[in-house]
Amino acid sequence: MGNSLLELLSPAVKRLRASEIRELLKLVRKSKEIISFAGGIPDPKYFPKEELAEIATKVITEQGEYSLQYSETKGVPELREALADFLYRNRGFKADPENIIITSGSQQALDIVARAFICIGDKVITESPSYLAAIGAFKLAGAELVGIKIDENGMKTFILEDVLRKLKSEGFKPKFIYTIPVAQNPGGVTMSRDRKKHLLELASQYDLLVIEDDPYSYFVFDEKADITSLKALDKEDRVLYMSTISKILAPGIRLGWIVPPEELTRRLELLKQYVDLHSPTLNQYIFAEAIKTGLVDRHVKKLKNVYKVKRDAMVSAMEEYFPEYTWYSRPIGGFFVFTYIYKQGFDAKSYLTVAIEKYKVAYVPGQGFHPDGTGENSMRLSFSYPSPETIREGIKRLSQLIKEL
Amino acid sequence: MGNSLLELLSPAVKRLRASEIRELLKLVRKSKEIISFAGGIPDPKYFPKEELAEIATKVITEQGEYSLQYSETKGVPELREALADFLYRNRGFKADPENIIITSGSQQALDIVARAFICIGDKVITESPSYLAAIGAFKLAGAELVGIKIDENGMKTFILEDVLRKLKSEGFKPKFIYTIPVAQNPGGVTMSRDRKKHLLELASQYDLLVIEDDPYSYFVFDEKADITSLKALDKEDRVLYMSTISKILAPGIRLGWIVPPEELTRRLELLKQYVDLHSPTLNQYIFAEAIKTGLVDRHVKKLKNVYKVKRDAMVSAMEEYFPEYTWYSRPIGGFFVFTYIYKQGFDAKSYLTVAIEKYKVAYVPGQGFHPDGTGENSMRLSFSYPSPETIREGIKRLSQLIKEL
Repeated sequence: MGNSLLELLSPAVKRLRASEIRELLKLVRKSKEIISFAGGIPDPKYFPKEELAEIATKVITEQGEYSLQYSETKGVPELREALADFLYRNRGFKADPENIIITSGSQQALDIVARAFICIGDKVITESPSYLAAIGAFKLAGAELVGIKIDENGMKTFILEDVLRKLKSEGFKPKFIYTIPVAQNPGGVTMSRDRKKHLLELASQYDLLVIEDDPYSYFVFDEKADITSLKALDKEDRVLYMSTISKILAPGIRLGWIVPPEELTRRLELLKQYVDLHSPTLNQYIFAEAIKTGLVDRHVKKLKNVYKVKRDAMVSAMEEYFPEYTWYSRPIGGFFVFTYIYKQGFDAKSYLTVAIEKYKVAYVPGQGFHPDGTGENSMRLSFSYPSPETIREGIKRLSQLIKEL
Repeated sequence: MGNSLLELLSPAVKRLRASEIRELLKLVRKSKEIISFAGGIPDPKYFPKEELAEIATKVITEQGEYSLQYSETKGVPELREALADFLYRNRGFKADPENIIITSGSQQALDIVARAFICIGDKVITESPSYLAAIGAFKLAGAELVGIKIDENGMKTFILEDVLRKLKSEGFKPKFIYTIPVAQNPGGVTMSRDRKKHLLELASQYDLLVIEDDPYSYFVFDEKADITSLKALDKEDRVLYMSTISKILAPGIRLGWIVPPEELTRRLELLKQYVDLHSPTLNQYIFAEAIKTGLVDRHVKKLKNVYKVKRDAMVSAMEEYFPEYTWYSRPIGGFFVFTYIYKQGFDAKSYLTVAIEKYKVAYVPGQGFHPDGTGENSMRLSFSYPSPETIREGIKRLSQLIKEL
């Protein structure tokens, strides 16, 4: 008699499908020939290795009794204090360190939010397109997503208003609105000040929670873009702010943070306790020191120029090579260009294998970014990892694929 | 109009209660006077700070492009390979590195197991008493726990046999049996070889999954105890093995691992991807290097003596000070002594405040370790953190509390 352990899995886990991003990374990692525009992966050439090695040595040698020990679920107090200061300087809101929860990357923040609020069948509002892994986390918890289209001014809040009215008339209250207001993933757009205010007014009118995901605001290349965070405009304490160390320092350190409405902090902290007790103490000490010594500020400043050059390389290559039946975003910041290919039968997902094998170029198919499952003809292209020259070559290959397939 | 965001929380999260261990740690951390027998906290005096600082510098400086970058969900291959070798040498089973999933501590492993299998109302079998945080994770997922009493030979598998027969006759199939077979938490006992075999026979007969939690087997002080892991005896691949770095190196690095039955690996890996993408790459490189350089082996050898002296100090102090109406375990290994106080009206939970405030001694009330909610008159005492002298003084204080209250 064979085992039938698979039958023991819960229905949600039985239904899980592999993320395209992750599967791609595996394929692409094996080859040096393939140019990858897939994951939003920082360029490792710029990791501040020497400085981080120095900091790691310091916090282990001088504070090892604490940095190697168990610590508070909410996070190491020194980090929460340093982070409150960092957020005030960079994002314009004052967070009480007692009201910050350190997470293991922003994926964990998304998962905690999903578990804390979503029951099967609950409505959740996101932008369309929105961040693939957020959509995945919300769906795993059982959410039914409602996508609100974006344009160059971010989420179309006048559509949001209609949707909220309609949902209410049908007896639904969404669990939250999830938005990446600044340098959106994958759209590269930033919400205008008026729309930010409109969104908050609607949240107030309908008594809603707003989840603000903010990984890319440090990399906004166009000076006139409004990078104000929703949290800074939030007078009613109904914005749950989240961000991550992954883009501003290094993803392998795997830290993120949540600044929730104060009334929710205790509940989210309790959930985090069941999830993993606390995020790695050592990493938190390293991050605190990296903020306090100014390393993070210096690093962000440097990276901003690096990524601006790469964005310019990608957009100008697309202008040169892409056929006229394509549309692509001109991102004001972030790591991505999003593109739609308006060619009969173009299916980015089914073409991916040949893209990788024949054209030696990788991207993320855009369908997973659309809460309603549309967008077969779209793809997300990340310019963060390859060099400007490689970006140019990759876009050339991609345009061949688009023209030939 | 005020916000009503709390109402948006899912029922499971609304029901969450704070863990006694964590709340205690907070109270006790503020004072140097209080002797804590609470958390299973390693003695930080012995953290191998110099060696770890050296390793951290090395993996950041020489391998920073990888150690600071995103990595595979299942874990860094170098670590999974080093760990497979480590487990073979120390725990006697051959794990395919492809079949190891690195987690963020064993708490995350417990949470992943709970989410992967448990639906509301599912039966789960544990030892009674069992590990408080495992009970918490299973209950959060909605499990109804069935506790099987332990004695000096571990779980009473003849009772398990009755329970399984009864459950089956009522139409129930438990999702899994959770056990800490070696140096049990909180009992300090180790399952005899016969009972291990009996457990696996029953698992085979009823086609069940067995979760083997193995944090303490490296610290078994009595040479004649059988420390064989269930996984090494498992011929049908139905044991999911899990363990942690927390006791053998340092908890602040926050890593654990799962070696599941092979048919489950892919599903658990997918779930982990939604949970936090992957555990910190940097920490995995550090741990891999600590295994490969022999640091972990050397450290475990040293710690085993340290903890043996502490266990002896606690047990001999209890023999001297504890009144005759108490029973306490003589742990063959691990970090804990478990004790029952047979005195009318003795309630360890409600006495805890006065224990801390008046007697300046802390423990974990035993009720949370009992799946059926009994054990009001019990407590778990950890000897891992305080010095032998402090242990003696703390047991003296505790015996005063027991006699006076």
